[in-house]
Amino acid sequence: MNGEVRVKNIGLRGVTVADTKISYIDGENGILIYRGFRIEELAERSSFMETAYLLLNGVLPSAEELREFTAEVDAARTVPEFVIDSMRRIPREADPMDVLQGVVPFLGVADPELMVETREANLRKAVRLIARVPAVVAAWNRIRNGLEPLPPDEGLPHAANFLWQLTGNKPDDQIARDLDVCLVLHADHTFNASTFACREVVSTQAHMYAGVSAGVGALSGSLHGGANARVMKMLFEVQKEVKSEDEVGDWVRMRMERGEKIMGMGHAVYKTFDPRSKILKEMSLRLGVRTGHEDWYRLLTRIEQEALKEFEKKGKDNIKSNVDFYSGSVYSMMGIPVDIMTPVFAISRISGWCSHVIEEKFAEAQDKPALYRPKAEYVGHYCGALGCVYQPVDARE
Amino acid sequence: MNGEVRVKNIGLRGVTVADTKISYIDGENGILIYRGFRIEELAERSSFMETAYLLLNGVLPSAEELREFTAEVDAARTVPEFVIDSMRRIPREADPMDVLQGVVPFLGVADPELMVETREANLRKAVRLIARVPAVVAAWNRIRNGLEPLPPDEGLPHAANFLWQLTGNKPDDQIARDLDVCLVLHADHTFNASTFACREVVSTQAHMYAGVSAGVGALSGSLHGGANARVMKMLFEVQKEVKSEDEVGDWVRMRMERGEKIMGMGHAVYKTFDPRSKILKEMSLRLGVRTGHEDWYRLLTRIEQEALKEFEKKGKDNIKSNVDFYSGSVYSMMGIPVDIMTPVFAISRISGWCSHVIEEKFAEAQDKPALYRPKAEYVGHYCGALGCVYQPVDARE
Repeated sequence: MNGEVRVKNIGLRGVTVADTKISYIDGENGILIYRGFRIEELAERSSFMETAYLLLNGVLPSAEELREFTAEVDAARTVPEFVIDSMRRIPREADPMDVLQGVVPFLGVADPELMVETREANLRKAVRLIARVPAVVAAWNRIRNGLEPLPPDEGLPHAANFLWQLTGNKPDDQIARDLDVCLVLHADHTFNASTFACREVVSTQAHMYAGVSAGVGALSGSLHGGANARVMKMLFEVQKEVKSEDEVGDWVRMRMERGEKIMGMGHAVYKTFDPRSKILKEMSLRLGVRTGHEDWYRLLTRIEQEALKEFEKKGKDNIKSNVDFYSGSVYSMMGIPVDIMTPVFAISRISGWCSHVIEEKFAEAQDKPALYRPKAEYVGHYCGALGCVYQPVDARE
Repeated sequence: MNGEVRVKNIGLRGVTVADTKISYIDGENGILIYRGFRIEELAERSSFMETAYLLLNGVLPSAEELREFTAEVDAARTVPEFVIDSMRRIPREADPMDVLQGVVPFLGVADPELMVETREANLRKAVRLIARVPAVVAAWNRIRNGLEPLPPDEGLPHAANFLWQLTGNKPDDQIARDLDVCLVLHADHTFNASTFACREVVSTQAHMYAGVSAGVGALSGSLHGGANARVMKMLFEVQKEVKSEDEVGDWVRMRMERGEKIMGMGHAVYKTFDPRSKILKEMSLRLGVRTGHEDWYRLLTRIEQEALKEFEKKGKDNIKSNVDFYSGSVYSMMGIPVDIMTPVFAISRISGWCSHVIEEKFAEAQDKPALYRPKAEYVGHYCGALGCVYQPVDARE
């Protein structure tokens, strides 16, 4: 398509800017596909390691390839000492997402292949990022609590090792498996804001770490990755403010009348249920029973029901709960602090970000231009082509 | 505009995505305007401090407002000790742009108003960034050379202070003024890749530092901010490879025949001369005479002439030298190392980035959506809505 196109002030919603082979969303029917596979299938039968391999390489690995890939990630977990050492200087109250965005370029400095721009080298950088981003998040949580970062435990699979490094406790197999499923569910979601930020940055031929750091920045926004933590805050508010569950309906109506959002409801892309939400809802119930937090699950489902009723009344029956609605409760029941929930999103999405960075760098499209550079319409001061008359500062009124 | 739009694989070239009041480019006629004023007028008569105020606030300051703004920047120059301390841990060979991208979120951690999202607080954050980004670049250059970072000199204006903190030498007035003009010239350029990255990231409601860090990442790409350093590398190559200036024509032709680029020529937006290039060309001559590097100027003009001839032969008479063609030589003659040239770009563009972040956050457009989220067309594996059949790993071929 050539010539001038005007798609002003819609945030590129509905504007197709590129081809991708990585993931596909059918928002009308609540379908999410990674490289051909339905998310439900992968959540039930695959693992995060295998899903990351699939996203990066386009096909499922053989048993041997999966063993190798997992071994490479395991071998790359140790965060370079200078990175840990620089993190120790950061004030304890720093938000974990700010720390992560700042640390990712330092991980780049430590990468011996930083400036090697082959597909193979970028796949190896992706392995290092998938291994080290969780280690950085866990290390920061230890450091800010005055504790020493823990070394990785080579006997533990990916998700379990993260919980170990984060909390100092080895999770049981079920919790480890549940977190692994969460990582599968959040691994990619086509051109969302953080992934687009990664692609936009590397379209200048910047390296993968520069792109991924930008992705972390975009994910930190409350409209993007911050939503699950906001659901938890809403849940704690409800718990404090209602005396019994029967009051939840009034609480929801009052909040909506005040023009406030019900967190974790609605999605820019899904016009029906979010396929990830269903899986997380079941997980929230199961974990609730096990950890004694059925109250959270009961409150959340009640908020969801009441909100759906209200939306229906307003004719908005396409607003359903999204991936963030139940994930916060799930993470809490795993012992993950509220402000580590968005970093957990990053620990998963890093696999998608790296896959998109590689696709952006090595796409086959012949006519792919150098970099993303949209236009804006100038609606500011204009005094003709000669410009406004500059008055020296002392002559100004 | 509603509905589906397809602008695939053109990097959003020619696609108008937003309104802006900050700057305007007329690429056909070689005109660049900041907030109504021609760049030539500002370069000749204004200063970087005043231009930064203009970009941020939309109008030129009164004498009192300019004094206040300058005093605020002066007062904000000191980089928090923990940031310097974390920089000391980074290996000396780290690229200054990677260091800067990583450090910007740490500057955010140190900002007492980090999470205050008013226009006024964001203007104050912009002041701190305009003050501290040059200080960080200078400090890194000292640290990597085994030297102590230098404190700011309150008696010096902005550009002169940067050169002092960078090199430990106080520049004469002419060089300080020349660098100040360079900062004016690079301060904004509407929706270029790094500015768009800043806007994209903060469209999620991420804070200014998250956006600016992403901008640094985009600027680090060799297709964006890295171009002036590549011109210098080309210049040094020519110097080594030709015996006399009469051989430059052959060198240019050979390079072009091999399909290699002549760095610093051509621009995505300007179809005629880049208005910034003209000013930098004059500056390169003047500084060349003063510093004994007329040879650089003579070689560059010769490369430019020969390249223009070759482009004309090919009917590409709209390819002219751009802002990067002479800026590298100018910076070199000021004593700025080649790998600090892109950071100098950042020291200037930070004023534009912050202005765009504020415009993005506080735009009046009623229908402005929450965040930039384009679409991509899925062209990967597809086995129908049920997805491909997942074979357990041991059953795979």
